Amino acid sequence: MTPPAFYEKPILFIYFAFTNLTKIKQISYQSRMAKEVTPRSENYSLWYNDIVLKANLAENSAVRGCMVIKPYGYAIWEKMQRTLDQMFKDTGHENAYFPVFIPKSFLSKEAAHVEGFAKECAVVTHYRLKNDPNGKGVVVDPEAKLEEELIVRPTSETIIWNTYKNWIQSYRDLPILVNQWANVVRWEMRTRLFLRTAEFLWQEGHTAHATSQEALEETERMINVYADFAENWMGVPVTIGRKSPSERFAGAVETYTIEAMMQDGKALQSGTSHFLGQNFAKAFDVQFTNKEGKLDYVWATSWGVSTRLMGALIMSHSDDNGLVLPPKLAPIQVVMVPIYKGAEELASISGKLKEIKKQLEAKGISVKLDDRDNFKPGFKFAEYELKGVPVRVAMGPRDFQNGTIEIARRDTLEKQSLSQEGIAEYIEQLLTDIQQNIYNKALARRKEMTTKVDSYDEFKRLLDEKGGFFLCHWDGTAETEELIKEETKATIRCIPLDGEMEEGKCMVTGKPSKQRVIIARSY
Amino acid sequence: MTPPAFYEKPILFIYFAFTNLTKIKQISYQSRMAKEVTPRSENYSLWYNDIVLKANLAENSAVRGCMVIKPYGYAIWEKMQRTLDQMFKDTGHENAYFPVFIPKSFLSKEAAHVEGFAKECAVVTHYRLKNDPNGKGVVVDPEAKLEEELIVRPTSETIIWNTYKNWIQSYRDLPILVNQWANVVRWEMRTRLFLRTAEFLWQEGHTAHATSQEALEETERMINVYADFAENWMGVPVTIGRKSPSERFAGAVETYTIEAMMQDGKALQSGTSHFLGQNFAKAFDVQFTNKEGKLDYVWATSWGVSTRLMGALIMSHSDDNGLVLPPKLAPIQVVMVPIYKGAEELASISGKLKEIKKQLEAKGISVKLDDRDNFKPGFKFAEYELKGVPVRVAMGPRDFQNGTIEIARRDTLEKQSLSQEGIAEYIEQLLTDIQQNIYNKALARRKEMTTKVDSYDEFKRLLDEKGGFFLCHWDGTAETEELIKEETKATIRCIPLDGEMEEGKCMVTGKPSKQRVIIARSY
Repeated sequence: MTPPAFYEKPILFIYFAFTNLTKIKQISYQSRMAKEVTPRSENYSLWYNDIVLKANLAENSAVRGCMVIKPYGYAIWEKMQRTLDQMFKDTGHENAYFPVFIPKSFLSKEAAHVEGFAKECAVVTHYRLKNDPNGKGVVVDPEAKLEEELIVRPTSETIIWNTYKNWIQSYRDLPILVNQWANVVRWEMRTRLFLRTAEFLWQEGHTAHATSQEALEETERMINVYADFAENWMGVPVTIGRKSPSERFAGAVETYTIEAMMQDGKALQSGTSHFLGQNFAKAFDVQFTNKEGKLDYVWATSWGVSTRLMGALIMSHSDDNGLVLPPKLAPIQVVMVPIYKGAEELASISGKLKEIKKQLEAKGISVKLDDRDNFKPGFKFAEYELKGVPVRVAMGPRDFQNGTIEIARRDTLEKQSLSQEGIAEYIEQLLTDIQQNIYNKALARRKEMTTKVDSYDEFKRLLDEKGGFFLCHWDGTAETEELIKEETKATIRCIPLDGEMEEGKCMVTGKPSKQRVIIARSY
Repeated sequence: MTPPAFYEKPILFIYFAFTNLTKIKQISYQSRMAKEVTPRSENYSLWYNDIVLKANLAENSAVRGCMVIKPYGYAIWEKMQRTLDQMFKDTGHENAYFPVFIPKSFLSKEAAHVEGFAKECAVVTHYRLKNDPNGKGVVVDPEAKLEEELIVRPTSETIIWNTYKNWIQSYRDLPILVNQWANVVRWEMRTRLFLRTAEFLWQEGHTAHATSQEALEETERMINVYADFAENWMGVPVTIGRKSPSERFAGAVETYTIEAMMQDGKALQSGTSHFLGQNFAKAFDVQFTNKEGKLDYVWATSWGVSTRLMGALIMSHSDDNGLVLPPKLAPIQVVMVPIYKGAEELASISGKLKEIKKQLEAKGISVKLDDRDNFKPGFKFAEYELKGVPVRVAMGPRDFQNGTIEIARRDTLEKQSLSQEGIAEYIEQLLTDIQQNIYNKALARRKEMTTKVDSYDEFKRLLDEKGGFFLCHWDGTAETEELIKEETKATIRCIPLDGEMEEGKCMVTGKPSKQRVIIARSY
């Protein structure tokens, strides 16, 4: 059995001089073990799971495939939510709320849609339980059978377009720019915390427009909002592109996606925006009188991101010591740990730390001062490293005397001793630097792991050897796409929007192609 | 057929001098009719429904008993949510998220709980649909039957305490102070928008404590938070009290409630906080090692408010012209309407209004400038009155010349012409005054409609004649409570926490009583 990871780190070791090593040993071996994270090199998938569980982000529940999002995980999601919500409002959207249930018959009204969702949905068939005649708890009351079954929403296009029918008569009622924050259920067979769960939280925008052009603009606007959020808040570089027809949303005419690359080189679809054409308007008979006084079907978009973003966030930046969070989304941006012996030292050091805390909070920075007495500094350091707190501030009695303070950054694990003078300004700048550094690192990795290939054999070899994103020519047929998927488990992630036009030949069939697409294995 | 209400109001009539009366007539009769609200005196229940529908707050959906919360209604709910959420955080709580599904067997583990919820719940029995062999849409796939049925949560005590079992070992793990914002489903047979719907949005706090004392304190703390929110944000005076045993939450040892009085004198239970004792800890075997090293069951509370608060808000303050909103919860606090002829007048008046808008926004006040050209001022006035915007600002060409501005307040329907000088400060103060006035009005009504009675006959007579709250002596038995309910449809709303102790005799049985309780009909 290897020793706990944080024992091996020199950055921590130095503190054992300050603290009482024998007391450190009192922390039970079990609790130290509980903090240990499987290294990425050993098992990437287990590493991910360890971080989710041990940083207290989420856990599996008693209900198959459904997770419990724990307070620390939820606090990150809440920051994402608030930020995205403001971005939606800034682009003219309002929130609303539609029923969690969808009548079964609604699903069938759009042919592709029912095909996409009927096979994995939770079906409500009864509305009452009764006492078991055999005296064992409760059973479904057969007399309380619903006339029509209800589906727990896997997405809300159908119920929303059935509602919009009554909201739209004329072009004056358009556009409708509505978003909903909600839970949805898709009965996935293989689930993974945040990445794929039977129930997940998300937002779904549903807009209605008078023209195709306006709806297309909205579709593009929202995929750009997602890309902005991913890059500038999550620190995750993404490629914006169109999905191939076979990867489109069930019922969409065009699906835009943002694709992020995880540390193992796999792609993670992080958000999608769909141009739905008039498909749902036709399915639900939503017509309007246009400016020319003629009846036409309404044009639609829908777009969504979910708690899956948590998975992208975790897998993009974290390391073998635990979670690494971009400062903009960290619930705690700065943690302060006093190093002391006895109440007197604690009082003076904490006093000083509280001063700095106030200065930081005045700058809108969230700070936690951890002066718990029953945990040693080394233990606390490991805990906040595991939880990805971007900046750690420590102060011992010598620091107190010398007017210094120790600052450690989570992203690089570097630390330095600095003067207390102007430290709030320094930390403020440091948080900006960390945000940028995290993004740069992910961007460099993506660059390093993106390969242009023109031969299918080379593609297959490099996919296994190196992984990552591959820029390849594809003949545009579903057959070739399917063949690649079957043979390599890699899929066409997207046709990049900013990809340059380049004449080429499909790497599989040799047929002509005008633009490279991104192919990768994915989550 | 009576003419539309807003034609009758002198406050509006004056504007017809400014505007072109013949143009006003162009507003189709139908759209004016759509704004008309049934007067309270005519049909209180229809009045309520009219306001919900015509102020665009919510509507019924295609799913029985489930509502669509429309953007304007949701914006109010969102303000409530944000405020409450901050209050919960300020009292040390964190948010988390638990599954929407509850295994059927979980419900049965707490005897009173299953009794309370099994009779009205949505039951998921299957996880897949398949194409109808007869070619008609999709049908439930009988092969995809769940081993154990899942209940769409009516409340989350069971799934949460099953989770807490793994979170709690020692007193060091306590307290757990967690809140969840979620949708819940209770299959109510008679539903009314916001007041009683099959699905509703709410928050549910679930806390775990080491001692009974601490849990009781938490229970009281949270009912006080609710009362604070109701009175100081919603402008709704409430009585805090304990529920009688038969009215307690299913599984609670003690239920605290806040009871508000609506304009028709009926009570509306607006929030509850439950001391659950060790009931759920015992049902889910959640034990911890206390400070003395002994195993004990954990003590629990739960507390919640829901979109029902929207119903309380609407029914407390609104009038026959529409919604009246307390400024603190109004999505639009000030609306500005320019009165003009032609583009030139519009430009100069709008320019001036925009200046004032900026000043107001700098004070954190939300302002909407409505310069839509296709609607006349009178129409706009009626619309914002219907939507309960607290302050309306209008400026015509004479105002522009004279440096004046017209301010109308929604709560009293008073208006006055004021100098533009210092108008932002005036409006800021006015919003505070309106908030206070709305509360005072509701408080005066409650006082006026609260009656002490000592005779059951008088109670019955006054209940029908006057309605409202009745302070009565009750012998404390479920039998008497049931008798009152059966004979009068009134129930014991609560045993007020601040009620003075007073020796008396039960108005029904003459048996001794030590404190008056509140009896009323309710929503």
